[in-house]
Amino acid sequence: MASPEIDQLTQMLAKLPGLGPRSARRAVLHLLKKRETVLVPLMAALANVNERLTTCSTCGNVDTRDPCGVCRDDRRDRSLVCVVEEVADLWALERSGLFRGVYHVLGGRLSALDGVRPEDLGIETLASRVAQGGISEIILAMNATLEGQTTAHYVADRLATTSVKITQLAHGVPVGGELDYLDDGTLAQALKARLPV
Amino acid sequence: MASPEIDQLTQMLAKLPGLGPRSARRAVLHLLKKRETVLVPLMAALANVNERLTTCSTCGNVDTRDPCGVCRDDRRDRSLVCVVEEVADLWALERSGLFRGVYHVLGGRLSALDGVRPEDLGIETLASRVAQGGISEIILAMNATLEGQTTAHYVADRLATTSVKITQLAHGVPVGGELDYLDDGTLAQALKARLPV
Repeated sequence: MASPEIDQLTQMLAKLPGLGPRSARRAVLHLLKKRETVLVPLMAALANVNERLTTCSTCGNVDTRDPCGVCRDDRRDRSLVCVVEEVADLWALERSGLFRGVYHVLGGRLSALDGVRPEDLGIETLASRVAQGGISEIILAMNATLEGQTTAHYVADRLATTSVKITQLAHGVPVGGELDYLDDGTLAQALKARLPV
Repeated sequence: MASPEIDQLTQMLAKLPGLGPRSARRAVLHLLKKRETVLVPLMAALANVNERLTTCSTCGNVDTRDPCGVCRDDRRDRSLVCVVEEVADLWALERSGLFRGVYHVLGGRLSALDGVRPEDLGIETLASRVAQGGISEIILAMNATLEGQTTAHYVADRLATTSVKITQLAHGVPVGGELDYLDDGTLAQALKARLPV
């Protein structure tokens, strides 16, 4: 229907997470219609990011600077390190604005199925950060999935010989959540970790 | 949180139709993670389209060639012209694969609210296409909205003095649709246009 060049662009956009064939077509039509105000600036923004993109050598965050914005920020507590699986998790925590420490991005989770081994993740770099000193607490903030929790256990084991305090995010009833709709695993965790009122 | 460059890219993607802030963030993370296999090829595809993009001088379709792929196709019936509001409508008809004629894209619909007047649309170019001869039927395929139907009436009036046959898409119960969920307007049209079994 459209030209091969436009079809190719549509297919590439359709493969991005969060987009499908339909939204990709709508996005492409918008780009074609607003060439000067949308398409050209988008190309420039992509080129800008691509040119300057780097990974923070301290924490593994993606940024256009190294060290990244979080690691450069003097107001952050460098003795508190939150360990996450992916950059997306770091962004989610940053959006909440609740955490004032720094991060360590592992770059994935241990997975026998996907062939991800400990040496594929940033676990040794975390261990050497701890060995350098200055860190008092490591917060394990992996996903509450089987693989995420396996990874958390592995990291905790790896750091067991150090004196650093290791904690993990609390499991329980999400705020606003109804008991009736909760899975049994969450209910069991919430019951086990019950607190005095 | 992320660098200004990454934030800017996220905001630009979030403004595309079909995307929101959340899917834009997911898309950006994917782009950052798969830099060589996704980000760079996407930039190339955008540049390729931007460089070659043109509007068909015959029908108003967007393509990388002029005349466009539809107008160049020798197997299409040039005596049958389907008039649509937008390129998106042309694409929708092409995806169905049911129409073997050619198109005329008006580039919008008459709208007093948005200040779109007849001279802002490709109505005169349609009239000159008809005046050139060779067209036997004009199919009006505007949206079944108030503005779309106003536009259809206007186009029909403009071409009334010519000998060309003017038709419009049938209104009625959509295939697979349940009467109980149909609006009264569609029901009224379907009843009015009832056919002998």
